[in-house]
Amino acid sequence: MKFDIYEFFSELSKNKAKIRMDAGDPDIEPNDVIINELIKNIKDLGYAPYKGLDELRDIIAEYHKVDIDNVIITPGSKAAISSLILFSKKVNLISPYWSGYEFSANLFKKQVSIINTKFEESWEPDFNKAENDATLIINYPNNPTGKVITQKKVKELIDISLEKNLTIVSDEAYRDIVFDGFRFKLTDFILQNSVSVFSFSKTFSMPGLRLGYAVGDKQLINKIGEFIKANITSVPKFSQRAAIKALEMWESIADQVKNTYYKRLTLFLNKINNKKFVYIRPSGTFYVFLKLNGLSGTELAYALAKKGLGIFPGEAFGREFENFIRVSLTTKEENIPLAAELINESVEELDVGKYIN
Amino acid sequence: MKFDIYEFFSELSKNKAKIRMDAGDPDIEPNDVIINELIKNIKDLGYAPYKGLDELRDIIAEYHKVDIDNVIITPGSKAAISSLILFSKKVNLISPYWSGYEFSANLFKKQVSIINTKFEESWEPDFNKAENDATLIINYPNNPTGKVITQKKVKELIDISLEKNLTIVSDEAYRDIVFDGFRFKLTDFILQNSVSVFSFSKTFSMPGLRLGYAVGDKQLINKIGEFIKANITSVPKFSQRAAIKALEMWESIADQVKNTYYKRLTLFLNKINNKKFVYIRPSGTFYVFLKLNGLSGTELAYALAKKGLGIFPGEAFGREFENFIRVSLTTKEENIPLAAELINESVEELDVGKYIN
Repeated sequence: MKFDIYEFFSELSKNKAKIRMDAGDPDIEPNDVIINELIKNIKDLGYAPYKGLDELRDIIAEYHKVDIDNVIITPGSKAAISSLILFSKKVNLISPYWSGYEFSANLFKKQVSIINTKFEESWEPDFNKAENDATLIINYPNNPTGKVITQKKVKELIDISLEKNLTIVSDEAYRDIVFDGFRFKLTDFILQNSVSVFSFSKTFSMPGLRLGYAVGDKQLINKIGEFIKANITSVPKFSQRAAIKALEMWESIADQVKNTYYKRLTLFLNKINNKKFVYIRPSGTFYVFLKLNGLSGTELAYALAKKGLGIFPGEAFGREFENFIRVSLTTKEENIPLAAELINESVEELDVGKYIN
Repeated sequence: MKFDIYEFFSELSKNKAKIRMDAGDPDIEPNDVIINELIKNIKDLGYAPYKGLDELRDIIAEYHKVDIDNVIITPGSKAAISSLILFSKKVNLISPYWSGYEFSANLFKKQVSIINTKFEESWEPDFNKAENDATLIINYPNNPTGKVITQKKVKELIDISLEKNLTIVSDEAYRDIVFDGFRFKLTDFILQNSVSVFSFSKTFSMPGLRLGYAVGDKQLINKIGEFIKANITSVPKFSQRAAIKALEMWESIADQVKNTYYKRLTLFLNKINNKKFVYIRPSGTFYVFLKLNGLSGTELAYALAKKGLGIFPGEAFGREFENFIRVSLTTKEENIPLAAELINESVEELDVGKYIN
């Protein structure tokens, strides 16, 4: 069964899925202070500067200990990553990966080279396998595996990147959601020929606002600027004013959100039938990437869609993950026992079906 | 003097320009009903469908008498135009043109071919000069000339486009601001291999919201969709809900805005010294493109910046327009006599200077 994400989404809405643990779309209410700041500034509808408001860029520059010229505000982190792909010769991706990267590479007709990682090796990448003179996209905490990178591994990456002349693009959308291990930002290690990309979508639960930023090598930041100017013009001023408020509450909101997802994670892992799955307990993100014992993740996802539960099949992250599912903990705690029960039940049914067929 | 738009903008802000008639950034207050709808929906911060909300696409489809599949909502009209440039082999532009088109073409390394038009020929383009098998971008009412296209000319364009296998991209950002002549939308004539692009920025005075739409050939609309998915994800739902309200008031707001700009235009043309300029009275947009008698528009623009008035030099639209200035009627009526006076005064000064040097 070849997996088509759009067909699958239409299946989910056809069955009016009640519990959505498929997309990375946080259910947590955005903070009222942020909402009020959006409202307060909503009438300010003139063009913003294409690199963003200096007040916001200053706060981010200070957080990353860089100059304002190393910072640009983007309409979501995707715009930054995508523009860096456009300006690449070749792109190295670490599998499993979020399909968005490949999508941009295809759009801009860039050659993609895959560094495979394996469940059996704790999803540990071998950066030596990267193609030279190319861009390498890393994503820790990782979607879908929840893996967090170690300091030692970052240093290894940087050595290799200098040897191989790699541009490192670090997608740090889940930077604030780390349960154990290292809370990583690339700019603490290197600025030259590299960019840290952050999204307001996950920490601040507002993906629809389309707000992110990139920090790094000035030349690369300027290239993102060229991309924004040509394609998008600027990010609304009211969003940027709200971002300033958001960052004032950064640590406390990050803590709150992290604790919420951690509670859900623990509850979910306690409720699913551990005889039917293997998994590496995620150290970050709000995803769990579970391996099924000989069953198709895609069949399971379709079976669950019929029961009103949305999850993602592993195939969404590459054909070799057809025995996996990704569960997004983006539903209220009270829904999680039922979700786990539906998963257990459908796995049993598919397991029985396997012997009957 | 080579014109650098960024240097010029920094000059404008250094001198704290009080009257801004430079960028196409409307000063008119956005309608309260639209603002209230933004506020009402501001908490709805989940991802929107990448082609836009069906309710909004339906309204636009009905207005253009097409199917919903012919419609996509975009974050500003620029994103639509830019993505159509990305998917082009070559791009035909009609000079003078808004620099944004060339900017996108350069970003995506597309060959640009220019069809020149002349003041002496009332800016009438010869579409036969377009390169075959390429995209042709048209923009009527035109920025900067204010020229409106005739029905006869549109039919001629379509015949030529079929002969030459042109993809027509019609930038209709100023569609609603027509004082005399034909209020043009391309979809009334052709759908195949063509796209009409509209912006909410000009009619509804909210450029910073980044909201537009494209209507046309399904295949091209799908390509814009690929671009949005890869680079931007989606347009905020609250913006789209506000757009629905905006379109309910479309005709009345368009009328109001058009009348406001027409009054300003008449006032401005009555106040400037007609012995020092030649111009073709604009039939649409909120721009006036004036030709100076042997003086440099760039020198005039810098002189005016020092006096607190922002206007654009013609060079912003191509080197051959160095004797022109573009005045944007985006300032309150009460400022216009002073603006005209400052222009007259600076022209006198430059004229005297010419004979002294």
